[in-house]
Amino acid sequence: MRAYNTEIISVGTELLLGHITNTDARDISEMLSKIGINVKYHTVVGDNPERLRACVQTAKGRADIIITTGGLGPTCDDLTKQVLAEAFGLPLVRNEDEVRGLYDYIRNRRVFTQNNFSQAMLPEGCTVFHNLWGTAPGCAFTAEGKTVIMMPGPPVECVPMFRAYGIPYLRALSDEEIVSHSVRIFGIGESTVDDMFADEMNSMVNPTMAPYAKECDCLLQITAKAASEAEAEAMMAPVISHVRERLGDYVYGMDVECLEEAVFPLLKERGLTFAAAESCTGGEIAKRMTDIPGASAVFVGGAVVYTNEAKARLLDLDPDMIEEKGAVSFEVAKALAERVREKTGADIGIGVTGLAGPDGDGVHEVGTVYVSMAVEGRTFVRSLSLGPKRTRSFIRRMSGNHAYDMMRRWLTGLEVELRP
Amino acid sequence: MRAYNTEIISVGTELLLGHITNTDARDISEMLSKIGINVKYHTVVGDNPERLRACVQTAKGRADIIITTGGLGPTCDDLTKQVLAEAFGLPLVRNEDEVRGLYDYIRNRRVFTQNNFSQAMLPEGCTVFHNLWGTAPGCAFTAEGKTVIMMPGPPVECVPMFRAYGIPYLRALSDEEIVSHSVRIFGIGESTVDDMFADEMNSMVNPTMAPYAKECDCLLQITAKAASEAEAEAMMAPVISHVRERLGDYVYGMDVECLEEAVFPLLKERGLTFAAAESCTGGEIAKRMTDIPGASAVFVGGAVVYTNEAKARLLDLDPDMIEEKGAVSFEVAKALAERVREKTGADIGIGVTGLAGPDGDGVHEVGTVYVSMAVEGRTFVRSLSLGPKRTRSFIRRMSGNHAYDMMRRWLTGLEVELRP
Repeated sequence: MRAYNTEIISVGTELLLGHITNTDARDISEMLSKIGINVKYHTVVGDNPERLRACVQTAKGRADIIITTGGLGPTCDDLTKQVLAEAFGLPLVRNEDEVRGLYDYIRNRRVFTQNNFSQAMLPEGCTVFHNLWGTAPGCAFTAEGKTVIMMPGPPVECVPMFRAYGIPYLRALSDEEIVSHSVRIFGIGESTVDDMFADEMNSMVNPTMAPYAKECDCLLQITAKAASEAEAEAMMAPVISHVRERLGDYVYGMDVECLEEAVFPLLKERGLTFAAAESCTGGEIAKRMTDIPGASAVFVGGAVVYTNEAKARLLDLDPDMIEEKGAVSFEVAKALAERVREKTGADIGIGVTGLAGPDGDGVHEVGTVYVSMAVEGRTFVRSLSLGPKRTRSFIRRMSGNHAYDMMRRWLTGLEVELRP
Repeated sequence: MRAYNTEIISVGTELLLGHITNTDARDISEMLSKIGINVKYHTVVGDNPERLRACVQTAKGRADIIITTGGLGPTCDDLTKQVLAEAFGLPLVRNEDEVRGLYDYIRNRRVFTQNNFSQAMLPEGCTVFHNLWGTAPGCAFTAEGKTVIMMPGPPVECVPMFRAYGIPYLRALSDEEIVSHSVRIFGIGESTVDDMFADEMNSMVNPTMAPYAKECDCLLQITAKAASEAEAEAMMAPVISHVRERLGDYVYGMDVECLEEAVFPLLKERGLTFAAAESCTGGEIAKRMTDIPGASAVFVGGAVVYTNEAKARLLDLDPDMIEEKGAVSFEVAKALAERVREKTGADIGIGVTGLAGPDGDGVHEVGTVYVSMAVEGRTFVRSLSLGPKRTRSFIRRMSGNHAYDMMRRWLTGLEVELRP
């Protein structure tokens, strides 16, 4: 089986200055791993022809497939096509289809500017990838035994274009399948997971297994290579069973990205809905569920009650109770979940109140959060101490994870409270 | 002035498989650019000693400072310290302070596992960076004329550690300051901005200016290098005035990351508050404002009214009106802003209703969104066609940007409606 080693070269000084994150390399890598193409290197280089030229030479020496992102657009510092074409001895020629396409695209949009035309200059003999999401076309060619693919930099163009054109172009090259599954874990840390499976992992060759820490949870990634997908799946099945058995109810899902993605189908299958009343998470829980297309089947809505007044006005919480117990309290959390459930008619009510920091309230430590879940006849409250050294973003995300974990556990008949 | 060229090498197969994004390289690059250190390359390589060794050799040939992220933790596939120490001929020695530190850290936390101890093996003579945010220490050393800094991979550890230890360690090396300002623009595209300033940008050397496209807005970055910060600022001042004058009210802020960051101080200075009633944005607007510490001074809260029932129950919208006009309508948007304003007592009410896709409602095109703003005595509604080819994420974020842009314009006395 021939492995096609791939290098992704992302071109852009804005990446080196830290103005933007290289999500293109991540998204392309993810798509490639699913079709059995190994990414061996990501390289980021600035808008500098000399350094890009050197990086392309290095890539020619260690990769079979070179994918570039960035530097195809209409701004003056574009250079990727020139350097790549030159590196493989190809002239750039004006593509008349693309010139017409550019006219069509902008007819009903913003003003067309002269520098848009440089986008239509492409390496001779290349396959042109017409850009339906922007103006700069991508392209691909094979020369000197290497395959080169060039994609525009903006993620809203790069990602759908790579999916539409890059993947089909490359799929024919691969003669092995890599299949990978992730076992997602919430409630114990990566270090503990690693220790549980360290001996096994060290002796595994194919499939392989590795633990990864995410911001607020962790996962075990199991990967097999085989001639066919079915063969790879058969190789992994016993490993997955074993891992799931040992981890028990800390496993919240397979091949999902986050807890809400695991909770969504659980609610949907059961025809149940939830609503959320969020104080310190400020819309985090709602935003995360509504990131999922079709969320309206399970998510009714909710209230962001960032101030005490909003808690009273939107959810009719008793101002005296808030005053007496404090906004960050077991009682307020409980009332938020119960009131939002009643008020919206949802089957499950979620409440969150706490201190996400960086400033404290003089009473509680930053990271003190109460997460609650009200269901018919019962309300659960988790009292969390997420730690004063954690970031605001971590505290908010982790609080959301606890809310989703409580729903997951209740929906699947598990104990809602985490074992200490 | 000596320039210290820097390469960031991020180690982790999970990066090459696209499981995670290399935010560490972005965050470190941003911190370095602020102290005048040029990042010339980012490299990502897997958990493979041979390939990492080759990357380190390449970096030794083209960089003065090598910064690694990842591969210091307790999992079995850690290898960064071994490879880097070997590349510079240093043995790894057990650091007793770190061994004690590891015991302290975990005493009240999760179970301590044997493989945690490998973390305390560090290159002989290095400066140890004790990890207050996790367990794996970082370190730095200078050898063969190169400076090497190693950081753990998880962003919640890497970023605060680099700020606390890496930046002070490196600051002494730099003898020039790079100062950079960004002019943030909403309402016209990067291509138009580029065309406006192309000739000037081409002839600029120091300061430089370059346009960048973000997901839902764009910016002009102006950067100067000088012996002192004051000198760099003086060099940029006339350029910034000129740019601001030409772009007019499309400029929403300087050195801010997003529209909400520009709106927050405008509200705060005026002692005004807002509330949001979100349908298709599902908490996006609330989440974005509450990402900002201290948001409670300006953001009262709001309602996520994802279903028609929630619109009626939480905000008392007339179900007959929703039925008659349709959930995605000018009238519902208007009512959402007005009702959430009344209900919460906020000074400004924001409403959003629309179709974020991917599925349509059989009536409107995906990307049809109404964004509204109610203030004392008046309600504004923007009717948007964001395009059916746009992602759900883009449509939601862009809708949020319009809401914040409407507030910005109203708060600064500009026309709320965008010129066509």
